[in-house]
Amino acid sequence: MNSDTKLRFGRKVISVEEARSLLYEYVNHTEIESVSLASAFGRRLAVDINADHPVPHFRRSGVDGYAVCAEDIEQASPEQPTVLRVIERIPSGTVPRWNVQSGLAARIMTGAPVPDGADAVVMLEMTDSLQDEGRNASYVSIKKNVQAGSNITPIAGEVALGELLLEDGTRIGPGEAAILAAFGHAEVPVYRKPKVAIFSTGSELLNVDEALQPGRIRNSNSYMLAAQVEAAGGSAVIMQALSDDPLQVETALREALGQVDLVLTSGGVSVGDYDVLVDVFGRFEGKLLFNKVAMRPGTPTSGAIWNNRLLLALSGNPGASFVGFELFAKPMIKAMSGCKAPCSAAISAFLDVDYAKGSAYPRYVRGTTLVEDGCLRVRPSGIDKSSIMVSIKDADCLIYLPAGGKGFVRGESVLIYPIQ
Amino acid sequence: MNSDTKLRFGRKVISVEEARSLLYEYVNHTEIESVSLASAFGRRLAVDINADHPVPHFRRSGVDGYAVCAEDIEQASPEQPTVLRVIERIPSGTVPRWNVQSGLAARIMTGAPVPDGADAVVMLEMTDSLQDEGRNASYVSIKKNVQAGSNITPIAGEVALGELLLEDGTRIGPGEAAILAAFGHAEVPVYRKPKVAIFSTGSELLNVDEALQPGRIRNSNSYMLAAQVEAAGGSAVIMQALSDDPLQVETALREALGQVDLVLTSGGVSVGDYDVLVDVFGRFEGKLLFNKVAMRPGTPTSGAIWNNRLLLALSGNPGASFVGFELFAKPMIKAMSGCKAPCSAAISAFLDVDYAKGSAYPRYVRGTTLVEDGCLRVRPSGIDKSSIMVSIKDADCLIYLPAGGKGFVRGESVLIYPIQ
Repeated sequence: MNSDTKLRFGRKVISVEEARSLLYEYVNHTEIESVSLASAFGRRLAVDINADHPVPHFRRSGVDGYAVCAEDIEQASPEQPTVLRVIERIPSGTVPRWNVQSGLAARIMTGAPVPDGADAVVMLEMTDSLQDEGRNASYVSIKKNVQAGSNITPIAGEVALGELLLEDGTRIGPGEAAILAAFGHAEVPVYRKPKVAIFSTGSELLNVDEALQPGRIRNSNSYMLAAQVEAAGGSAVIMQALSDDPLQVETALREALGQVDLVLTSGGVSVGDYDVLVDVFGRFEGKLLFNKVAMRPGTPTSGAIWNNRLLLALSGNPGASFVGFELFAKPMIKAMSGCKAPCSAAISAFLDVDYAKGSAYPRYVRGTTLVEDGCLRVRPSGIDKSSIMVSIKDADCLIYLPAGGKGFVRGESVLIYPIQ
Repeated sequence: MNSDTKLRFGRKVISVEEARSLLYEYVNHTEIESVSLASAFGRRLAVDINADHPVPHFRRSGVDGYAVCAEDIEQASPEQPTVLRVIERIPSGTVPRWNVQSGLAARIMTGAPVPDGADAVVMLEMTDSLQDEGRNASYVSIKKNVQAGSNITPIAGEVALGELLLEDGTRIGPGEAAILAAFGHAEVPVYRKPKVAIFSTGSELLNVDEALQPGRIRNSNSYMLAAQVEAAGGSAVIMQALSDDPLQVETALREALGQVDLVLTSGGVSVGDYDVLVDVFGRFEGKLLFNKVAMRPGTPTSGAIWNNRLLLALSGNPGASFVGFELFAKPMIKAMSGCKAPCSAAISAFLDVDYAKGSAYPRYVRGTTLVEDGCLRVRPSGIDKSSIMVSIKDADCLIYLPAGGKGFVRGESVLIYPIQ
């Protein structure tokens, strides 16, 4: 058996987890860049964010009303209101000028700082405002007693100084954006988006803008993979589809590997005479990490390293490309962009149909979930459709079906990996 | 009661659904623009996509092997293989030159067109190739019979000519991108991203790049809402926070309304003395659609129209702003960008904790889901946290809790609205 035949037929099979570990050894996060907060949405933080001030950083009124000394109004009731002299008005955003001493009150707005001396705020609805025009003085009649501390959030009542708010690697969504804004991060250090070059192989492939020709089809995998790359947080570069010439292919791949963080190919990894990636790996100066994975679809998925750059070669079938991307490429792209837990955790769901096909290898089946009476049900995507390409859009998870001969029945509990 | 007092205290309460309907009357989708397929990911299609050719558009081989007349190999077995003369080699992407007649076979690759005359393809693994050097002829020894039709996908076997593949309004993800590419849509008509101007109100608000000051806080709602806008498919424009001066505010809002598809404000809609949006609505030349919604949080959420442009005024509390956005603004933005079912459907889940607080109005509580043994469980986000702002990032749904006095207990079935 020569080395070429061995590459095609004598492949050593490894598990999905082993293949991932082999790839991960070469995954590094990208460098850090600084972007404005408004353009940081969807990116991943490259630092921990700790509170550099407490929240609130002043005693804050939670309501519109009057800041008072609670002792003064202990006896207040609708029948016997307590009248206090109003010394000032504190809109939010201003600072109190006076202390509130016994017998006094300050009109205060929601969010404004409670003046020193006051230890409670009475809601506006429980008061009547009185005006003594002659003495040019304002009074408030308070109809209810409140406990000391009422309607006041103490300093650090929400967030302590130094508290860890967001961890390095966190994806910046609406809640994270609010925190970053509140703590003054107008510029945010994030990881550069990993660049991913995408090649399809096959001389049957036409560009998307070419007219259909006999025996030829348009390259759709590259666009599918590009959309997956962008959804994973990467930046996709769609390359011209590869020819059947191993030397040309090697040159194209080498050039791409010098410019991007990851090269993805689809097709050309099987056992056919024209599976050019196999030929390239046969003469490869880099290191072939694996070329057979115990999974269906996508058994001939291959991984390689060239000058410390990663090359992941996916099966050419659209379904296998999609699944291979989700299992291997997406976690790599997420890890490169700083994600600390890049593999989506499996959750359990109930199989909603029989799945009769057993398999010598574990299957990762594109699945569609639905929730019924609080239960998560899942069925293979597109079982009612004859085209894999048309059903890919319906997948929101991968269903993991362990190897075995007997298949699975409706109602059985299975593990699924949600997509996104 | 003068009109101002009426606006503050005499508000007519309407349901969330009624408020939505009032807003929706003024929602139109944006105009259509054409973008390249690679930049269309995440956008919404502005046309139906029908198959302008069948898939496959030729009889396609599903395997590497030999195209034969099934009749010829009816008797083939490992012991008594049938030998056929190989007339040509058909890589994928090429067109057969010859018909396959009885006694003949053609070497064919996966994806290549099956030659006329042949009605089955035998997998390579079931054959041996023979070479007659003297006569310069190739033969194949076939060790297994296969049925007519085997390993051939007929024309239109996957997609029929004219089949509806993608509907107007569909969001373009990986599966949609593959379909668009396969059918030659290098340029894709999509709806323009709706532009959304975002104003926060409150003179306590500092810009995100300003140093903290006594009694003042940084504007975080605008960034939270901007991230929500972008996640909903809109384009966010963060405006300078609004002052307390109704005339200035009216001018700023009017100007924005002339330039964007939707104006969002947060804060200033309550009953406080400085709730400037209420003053603006009091002198408003446009039409106030509603200013009180039967919901918590966010009861004073208000909607208005000005020259056919929409203004949605959210409560200023970060939790209320977040919820109000999800209930009202997100579906509007999705509808503007072409989505045909912009409100996320409710699904059922099991409450994972007691929720003791009853409410006169239905509550929409920010929730966090988890799946346990195939069951969807949900708990209010941040029940272990003292800051609403810090817990917003943990929400992946809104829990709908109907009005009523008694609260809810752990294990009860509730409806939730997933976010995204």
